[in-house]
Amino acid sequence: MIGRLNHVAIAVLDMEEALKVYRDTLGGIVSDKVAQPDHGVSTVFVELPNTKIELLEPLGENSPINKFLERNTQGGIHHICYEVDDIIAARDQLVANGARILGDGEPKIGAHGKPVLFLHPKDFLGTLTELEQA
Amino acid sequence: MIGRLNHVAIAVLDMEEALKVYRDTLGGIVSDKVAQPDHGVSTVFVELPNTKIELLEPLGENSPINKFLERNTQGGIHHICYEVDDIIAARDQLVANGARILGDGEPKIGAHGKPVLFLHPKDFLGTLTELEQA
Repeated sequence: MIGRLNHVAIAVLDMEEALKVYRDTLGGIVSDKVAQPDHGVSTVFVELPNTKIELLEPLGENSPINKFLERNTQGGIHHICYEVDDIIAARDQLVANGARILGDGEPKIGAHGKPVLFLHPKDFLGTLTELEQA
Repeated sequence: MIGRLNHVAIAVLDMEEALKVYRDTLGGIVSDKVAQPDHGVSTVFVELPNTKIELLEPLGENSPINKFLERNTQGGIHHICYEVDDIIAARDQLVANGARILGDGEPKIGAHGKPVLFLHPKDFLGTLTELEQA
């Protein structure tokens, strides 16, 4: 079912500080910062030869990463995202296996403009896991 | 400086349970389980088309992932590993930038038989970050 690792998302308190680490210290190739008001975050992608790191900064008062940043006050890895060929088939197979999908179970359009689902961390080794239609 | 994402490591309490998730539920291609007594873990690799997931289970009484699993009782993402062309040059550049290296600062031979270093999470966005000589 799972294909490529699309990205690893790191929640950060301050994007300028995150860029100092990933662009200046680690020498990564970074995208422009993009506000994603529908998702309550601003994003920067670090382009690696084989995948991406997604830096997430809270946007607005009800950002979905606020709670994570309250528990992880220096930031940290927030989720990983795998590509799947058919997100509906993947979801149905996971649910048949007893796994839980976050939210109403219907794919939403994610930060990359493609349908995504988030799987319950308790069913996936304590790891918030996103599936994205390839 | 940073090249490919070599792997994302997920610490797990029980490898059999982890295999149910990654092999059976997510349909991943998994390696045999290998005991790494020098590192205090047993490892299974999930081979993705573009990178790997490293599942880490504690091995022995003083496993370096025990504390993490006390804090993260369902497991969780433990670290990410980037490849670098020259680990000594990378280390020297990072130290010159003020970043801290864990341990004595000298590369060790990692689970893949290549020199590795771990960078201090406080200097890398709350993320334990490994560098591996490519």
